[in-house]
Amino acid sequence: MSTAELTLYTAKVCPFAQRVEIAFAEAGSNVAKYQIDLKNKPEWYAPKVNPASKVPAIAYGGPKVDPADPSPESTKIAESLVLLEFVADLYPSAALLPADPVQRAQVRFFIDAVSTKFLPSYFALALRGESPEKVYAALADVQALLSPAGFAVGDKYTIADAAIAPFLGRADIMLKRDLGRYEPGVGAGAYKEIFETPKFARLQKYYADVSARPSWKATFDEDYLVDYTKRVTFGGQK
Amino acid sequence: MSTAELTLYTAKVCPFAQRVEIAFAEAGSNVAKYQIDLKNKPEWYAPKVNPASKVPAIAYGGPKVDPADPSPESTKIAESLVLLEFVADLYPSAALLPADPVQRAQVRFFIDAVSTKFLPSYFALALRGESPEKVYAALADVQALLSPAGFAVGDKYTIADAAIAPFLGRADIMLKRDLGRYEPGVGAGAYKEIFETPKFARLQKYYADVSARPSWKATFDEDYLVDYTKRVTFGGQK
Repeated sequence: MSTAELTLYTAKVCPFAQRVEIAFAEAGSNVAKYQIDLKNKPEWYAPKVNPASKVPAIAYGGPKVDPADPSPESTKIAESLVLLEFVADLYPSAALLPADPVQRAQVRFFIDAVSTKFLPSYFALALRGESPEKVYAALADVQALLSPAGFAVGDKYTIADAAIAPFLGRADIMLKRDLGRYEPGVGAGAYKEIFETPKFARLQKYYADVSARPSWKATFDEDYLVDYTKRVTFGGQK
Repeated sequence: MSTAELTLYTAKVCPFAQRVEIAFAEAGSNVAKYQIDLKNKPEWYAPKVNPASKVPAIAYGGPKVDPADPSPESTKIAESLVLLEFVADLYPSAALLPADPVQRAQVRFFIDAVSTKFLPSYFALALRGESPEKVYAALADVQALLSPAGFAVGDKYTIADAAIAPFLGRADIMLKRDLGRYEPGVGAGAYKEIFETPKFARLQKYYADVSARPSWKATFDEDYLVDYTKRVTFGGQK
């Protein structure tokens, strides 16, 4: 267990930030969270925490300070996948990465498939109205990588699960409500395909398993996300 | 030290494959290498080694076999960044990742900057003739992340160095010869900017340091790369 100062800069709406919140929860860490309003970021955030001005980011070490006045003495770390590995390194007893090198490689290969296949196709659908067929193809590839039972890699929860779960969660609640920049009905159709057809039975069971965990319930607020998406992301367009 | 069977499927021309060759060399491993002709891949390669049909890939474990007849019993692992972590995990005594969680995060953040900033801008220049200005901006960011002396993160060679070096090497030898899909003179101008101006002094020293290592000399063949690029990549267009 680390005893250094630790603050996670996050935003409830951001799936990349939820990845890291989940990892801390799975590690049993009560990390201090500071919410960043992504539509109205504090002036100090980019210069003092993350020059890229994105969440998630972490301030680690240094003196105890007000999170809204970060110390130059703490180390700042950004990028959700870098942070997942960091949480795994910081809390080795949580075993968020397996000990076996081959299984560790499988975790990272799974995360790569999420990054290069699922996310681009999902954003293309949700934000640009492109075809859901690419999402189905990507999720078929992802599903083929899942362990036959249990989690992404083996029967223990790893950072591979934390990497994909926030995006499955958003696909679930947004497609179900047909909320996205596509023609009416496209989201609802994609919802049925992904979350109800037997073709994706393994993925559905997997999603049920990861979203049943306390780490999920503590970091995913369906009502908030739907309201935010309607009100802010799509600014009343839908 | 691992004693399992291990074959690296690689290609001398491929910078992603060189990353992994460097990591094995730094780990002191005489890994068996099997060259894949990227313009004429063996029929068995995609079905038996890497469905994505790319190098690098590894076959690990299983019985001792002819690399041209891979065993279904060995584990196949692909993606160069996954493989860098795998090599670091397989040879912990080589310390290709630091022990400190913060430094490990810095290694991974550096690699992320290479992946998301340097490589896209370099390929845009070399393959599509886009402006070199984005390469300069990306390399300024990368340079700012380098340790003041020594290697990318600290004074020991890590997978961060293996991740960037092959691309600096190609930028060096290709831009110098004005070899790329840009207007004549653009490459030579970019070469001067990156490899000769004081603005990039730290990067130049860093490149000199990584390319002076035995792991570099054993995996980088300038004459072969230049000949291949003229003959195959640009098919006599230049």
